Amino acid sequence: MKVVITGGAGMLGRRLALRILAKPELTGPDGAPQDVSKLVLFDAFDPVEAPSEDPRVEVVTGDICNRETLDSLIDGETDAVFHFAAIVSGGAEVNFDLGYAVNLDGGRNVLEAARRTGRCPKVVFASSLAVYGGERSVDDSTALTPQTSYGTQKAIGELLVNDYTRKGFVDGRTLRLPTIVIRPGKPNAAASGFASSILREPLQGDEVGNPVTPESRMLILSPKRAAQAFIEIHNADGASLGINRAVMMNGISPKVSEMLDVLSRYAGDAVADRVYSKPDAMVQEIVDGWAWYSDGARARALGMEPDASLEEIIETFVNEELDGTFVS
Amino acid sequence: MKVVITGGAGMLGRRLALRILAKPELTGPDGAPQDVSKLVLFDAFDPVEAPSEDPRVEVVTGDICNRETLDSLIDGETDAVFHFAAIVSGGAEVNFDLGYAVNLDGGRNVLEAARRTGRCPKVVFASSLAVYGGERSVDDSTALTPQTSYGTQKAIGELLVNDYTRKGFVDGRTLRLPTIVIRPGKPNAAASGFASSILREPLQGDEVGNPVTPESRMLILSPKRAAQAFIEIHNADGASLGINRAVMMNGISPKVSEMLDVLSRYAGDAVADRVYSKPDAMVQEIVDGWAWYSDGARARALGMEPDASLEEIIETFVNEELDGTFVS
Repeated sequence: MKVVITGGAGMLGRRLALRILAKPELTGPDGAPQDVSKLVLFDAFDPVEAPSEDPRVEVVTGDICNRETLDSLIDGETDAVFHFAAIVSGGAEVNFDLGYAVNLDGGRNVLEAARRTGRCPKVVFASSLAVYGGERSVDDSTALTPQTSYGTQKAIGELLVNDYTRKGFVDGRTLRLPTIVIRPGKPNAAASGFASSILREPLQGDEVGNPVTPESRMLILSPKRAAQAFIEIHNADGASLGINRAVMMNGISPKVSEMLDVLSRYAGDAVADRVYSKPDAMVQEIVDGWAWYSDGARARALGMEPDASLEEIIETFVNEELDGTFVS
Repeated sequence: MKVVITGGAGMLGRRLALRILAKPELTGPDGAPQDVSKLVLFDAFDPVEAPSEDPRVEVVTGDICNRETLDSLIDGETDAVFHFAAIVSGGAEVNFDLGYAVNLDGGRNVLEAARRTGRCPKVVFASSLAVYGGERSVDDSTALTPQTSYGTQKAIGELLVNDYTRKGFVDGRTLRLPTIVIRPGKPNAAASGFASSILREPLQGDEVGNPVTPESRMLILSPKRAAQAFIEIHNADGASLGINRAVMMNGISPKVSEMLDVLSRYAGDAVADRVYSKPDAMVQEIVDGWAWYSDGARARALGMEPDASLEEIIETFVNEELDGTFVS
């Protein structure tokens, strides 16, 4: 099968790519896992890490706002598209027009290109709990009342995925993600980025500012569990998903103070003491608008598991990204 | 004040225009009703009925998909925009691309033009109960799960109005309308159009096909009450509306069989017998997806009243549109 991943140089895109290249996990029309014969990794940026040297991989750098580019990527051979590319929450808040161009018009370009193949490919859309707003606890049927431009654009993308699916143009699926923690690499412009930074940076010996209060809660999910959930939603039976193709993924809901306590227990006080308070009113306001508890029955029914604990999240990060060691 | 109405040649646009020209009802920044000094009626079509000869009125015919056109209509003098222009439900279902062009991109053009004035004008957006789907009873906080392209486009418009308002670009308000009954004039491509036709046509001596079952229920509102509600939502205090600017308007919820019974009581059996059964599976499916009961607490709190009865709706139509007589 041919798979296209937008945002293919990003954290989730790259992780998913390595997984589906390593062994057949995405199912075909017969329900059996299929080999990936071609994998296109599309992104606005050249990959920071070298992409896999696997001959099945093609790296394409370009602008998702260019419709012709998308039409050439998503062609008559394409079986599945994973659409991760996005301007993240903080970025879309600062640059209103760029956020709409990439997150709304770019998403429409993906759906239009998939529609034009005439073969109703699967389109798996990465949404976010930023589609909610003002509720502490959310589930699959909570009304979407986003309080950021990013959340608005993701909510619009969900509506489009449902409508294109209903019309038979694509076989769409949307996964609403909790905040991904611990993201590897460098901080990005996501308002949620601190939730990774306050764990990642101290484990590597660096001091880091925490922009929110210790009482702030976040709904979080590891990159590993997120990639697994994307495979599962790709493989889910479309008819059983029904008209609304959006599934809210579950996560765990620690306070920031609990995150730092677990870091201290796991790595020692010296590590946790590298986190200092650096309040940021914009980040606090955005985070306060997000839900921190998810009761996603559909994700549970589909067998999508959140992480067992914060300890597991930290340990997995240290093993996968830091070769099993940290700076004590 | 200067007011722009898109869809200004349409049923609601024209009715609102005549009202606000007749007496000051739209309030200004000081909360007092203001005279309309200029009223732009914009539509894709030349008005079927001659527009008011009032010198304050300017009729502009053009394409809402043309951004420059909107930028010239909505200028630095504009205080309020009523955005009614749309491809209706049946039309957007048949012509997918045209529906998105007019209902999504056209709406963005309105919001962008309003944003560029730099003076945060009021933008009043006409949404529809088609934003819901699969629920029999809805209220202001029901999740939006549209089951038509038209409903999807209206739901997206609501999200955009909220985001542009949150950013301070416009002072947006959305009114979710029940099905408008009795629409004057000729049938249009709206899937809901039959609900007017089965009352309007027999009163004028014409036979008419009813596409749905007698048990089908519709949530309905008269044009007169709708125009009143648009004035009220324009005048509402923005801060008290909060982050979600959408208000679900209430209506009455007769079965189609009840509509025909009331028609018979009001005008006689000979009139009601002009309605014959002509099932249409597409219309039935769309109507079955719509809610038929609204419990809109926000509309009630804002003093927006639905019609007292179906009898009142029919009588008002006969008096306003048929000079007080019908073909018995």
